Amino acid sequence: MSMARPIRFNAFQMNSPGHQSPGLWTHPRSDSERYATPEYWIELAQLLEAGGFDAIFLADVLGVYDVYRKSVGPALRHAVQAPLNDPLALVPLIAQATTRLGIGVTAALTYEHPYTFARRMSTLDHLSRGRVGWNIVTGYLDSAARNLGLERQLGHDERYDLADEYLEVVYKLWEKSWEDDAVRRDRANGVYTDPERVHPIEHVGRYYTVPGIHLSEPSPQRTPFLYQAGASPRGMRFAARHAEATFVSAPGKAAVRRYVDTIRAARRAEGRDPEQLLVYSQALVIAGATDAEAQARLAEYKRHIDVEAALALLSGWTGVDFARHHLDDTIEYIDTDAGRSALASLSTADPERRWTVREAAEFIGLGGRGPIIVGSGAAVADQLEAWLDETGVDGFNLAYALPLEDMRGVVEHLVPELRRRGRYAAEDLDGATLRERLLGAGPRLAPDHPGRQVSIEPATAPALPSAA
Amino acid sequence: MSMARPIRFNAFQMNSPGHQSPGLWTHPRSDSERYATPEYWIELAQLLEAGGFDAIFLADVLGVYDVYRKSVGPALRHAVQAPLNDPLALVPLIAQATTRLGIGVTAALTYEHPYTFARRMSTLDHLSRGRVGWNIVTGYLDSAARNLGLERQLGHDERYDLADEYLEVVYKLWEKSWEDDAVRRDRANGVYTDPERVHPIEHVGRYYTVPGIHLSEPSPQRTPFLYQAGASPRGMRFAARHAEATFVSAPGKAAVRRYVDTIRAARRAEGRDPEQLLVYSQALVIAGATDAEAQARLAEYKRHIDVEAALALLSGWTGVDFARHHLDDTIEYIDTDAGRSALASLSTADPERRWTVREAAEFIGLGGRGPIIVGSGAAVADQLEAWLDETGVDGFNLAYALPLEDMRGVVEHLVPELRRRGRYAAEDLDGATLRERLLGAGPRLAPDHPGRQVSIEPATAPALPSAA
Repeated sequence: MSMARPIRFNAFQMNSPGHQSPGLWTHPRSDSERYATPEYWIELAQLLEAGGFDAIFLADVLGVYDVYRKSVGPALRHAVQAPLNDPLALVPLIAQATTRLGIGVTAALTYEHPYTFARRMSTLDHLSRGRVGWNIVTGYLDSAARNLGLERQLGHDERYDLADEYLEVVYKLWEKSWEDDAVRRDRANGVYTDPERVHPIEHVGRYYTVPGIHLSEPSPQRTPFLYQAGASPRGMRFAARHAEATFVSAPGKAAVRRYVDTIRAARRAEGRDPEQLLVYSQALVIAGATDAEAQARLAEYKRHIDVEAALALLSGWTGVDFARHHLDDTIEYIDTDAGRSALASLSTADPERRWTVREAAEFIGLGGRGPIIVGSGAAVADQLEAWLDETGVDGFNLAYALPLEDMRGVVEHLVPELRRRGRYAAEDLDGATLRERLLGAGPRLAPDHPGRQVSIEPATAPALPSAA
Repeated sequence: MSMARPIRFNAFQMNSPGHQSPGLWTHPRSDSERYATPEYWIELAQLLEAGGFDAIFLADVLGVYDVYRKSVGPALRHAVQAPLNDPLALVPLIAQATTRLGIGVTAALTYEHPYTFARRMSTLDHLSRGRVGWNIVTGYLDSAARNLGLERQLGHDERYDLADEYLEVVYKLWEKSWEDDAVRRDRANGVYTDPERVHPIEHVGRYYTVPGIHLSEPSPQRTPFLYQAGASPRGMRFAARHAEATFVSAPGKAAVRRYVDTIRAARRAEGRDPEQLLVYSQALVIAGATDAEAQARLAEYKRHIDVEAALALLSGWTGVDFARHHLDDTIEYIDTDAGRSALASLSTADPERRWTVREAAEFIGLGGRGPIIVGSGAAVADQLEAWLDETGVDGFNLAYALPLEDMRGVVEHLVPELRRRGRYAAEDLDGATLRERLLGAGPRLAPDHPGRQVSIEPATAPALPSAA
């Protein structure tokens, strides 16, 4: 690992007034309640692009946080990821307002059929000229499943089995249905598409039957750039197999280092280059003109932390109703079925430390499960360099307390410092796809990626009969 | 019916290189192959807005035309609504490039769960500031159903039963889950949303179970402006009940007049004002600086009609494989199960006329099932006035041969003439929702609309427990 590796940034966002810092929407300088307006996203996206961010990354849950007090009331009151609009609708808007910024979108695959989803993503990849990324999530809120007519969501491992097949279907649609030269646009001969070069995928599996062709012609990346953040053993295998970038959320370097080693080992076990998997670690960076200014902002933010809001979030993540515990109770390790090891990562951050419920709430109440890194551009740069060098991550998924203010702090005070140190990505040329920018190769999936390895058997998927 | 009624225009489009004039993409001046670029849609939308159009109307099918020769080959070769991208992705893009234009989108409701669809549409209504419309379609291509894992689509009447329940679910989410004053954004007291004013819908029906709250806060229109174009008796009842605007496609005034009378009678039978249902009739308008110029364009377009492409379209609409018939065979009335009375409307246009297969193909090969109206602005205006006055429609759903050229012809030559005659809608103020512009009332559904009449029973849907 070279000391000169550039430090990469994603902006971690959500189409909601509250994301990772529940309570902070009440701050007088918060812009988060503008989330339903196009202007908010355009302003933010153009700021991120000017600051050379890899991507804006839009989280989503398609459900409500109703574990705490067995009620959605606290989540509504404190805007804990509620209300929550569709993130996919932001992609064309952000794409049109920028030329280089990547746009990563979370979409839970148990809740939309792969045939329609494949067309949605191809369309977004066309409109963004190859800048769309997909964060593959298998879903973790029972409330979402219930509203889709299920008693509860599938079991954890079955969700991953379904996810493997789902990906097989969309890979077939994206990668194999249309050959590169299928689209001719030959006006003289009246051939828009050569039917001999478009193939029905004839998929028949355990969960899905999709006989037909993909509806969209190939987009710049074909398969969107793939993010996945599985944290359980099964989830890590899934991420190692499919992801081109992954996320980790933990407050300390030791836990992050362990994650990085594990995921890269899993990648190596797949027989593929472990360095071709980018790892972003969640952090709240408060960068100011001076240390004092940044520390003053932190102190001010802390006054807006809301413990009830944070517990609504933590209860949703873990499935544990913390209303049944006293704020001064100590949290023991809880092995969550959903693989969301929020408490595990808190408690493993410092094996000697035992967190009370209140401490955990106050911790995740500002910036979620990652560290808070505060100071002048130089002071923050020092800390981020240490994180990179000590953990092996490639960059940071930047949460916010105040969305525009904190991103502006990074762009104005931190990015110039990293550039001076030669530890920030070079200015990118316009026109590159997200995959080309992030991996230095593309625009298609690497040849050894499972998405390139799927096949549509010639025996069952003959070329279409010619219409001539 | 006053003689001075304004004439309304929608632009009938699709996120595809070929829509209603199969073969015309081969014309040297066609722009339709730019459909996958944002610039195409922005240029088109700004032209339509400058021309005072009510809306751009995006058709969709989520399937392929594979009835003709039992193959998707002809549809691919001739770009017959294939390839076909997601229309919803165009809404944020068009909304951001315009300030008044409505954006109507077709979404087939058998293919997406109402819980996720409701959030998608609320998000688009937020981002467009209340300018989104939804064309409710129950689906008519078996190929779409097969790719979603079904043997074939539901039977015609069962699709409408499911549609009624689907609408009940989305109405509950859009209209009843969040009270008007639920969102407080009260920073001082830390209350973003008052949980007492947000209600789970507790829907338990034959097809759907949706217990929870809507994820999105109320958008400007809440329920998007509703289009529906059912043509069968069951479809007409459905449209009369739910639609705020409807479409008809037929080449002659007699058939359109019959449709208008029937749909307005059905509306009256619902106990509601039949004039509060706008009817748009499909037409291809070729307007030029002079009659000669327009006629020359028509003659030129006709050379690009492709009979095989038209038969692929007609076979898909009707379920009849016209490859089994000779081009000189006469088409008899075919009562299509799907309620898509393409042939019926052709044959009833002139009860004395019998169409051959070739004549029908050449007819729908340019502009689809509506009439072609050609000439100078004045000549076209005369004909459209006669259509309005003799059929009772409110306006036209304008198909194209060449998308930008034909819309430019309307905007430059026809609209000024209609304005001179006082038969065009006044310049609208910015900031009105689509419903307010089209119905002169709103932004919410009319109080007697079924979407306002749904209830979430207090007995089963209590206010959420307070978290305080």
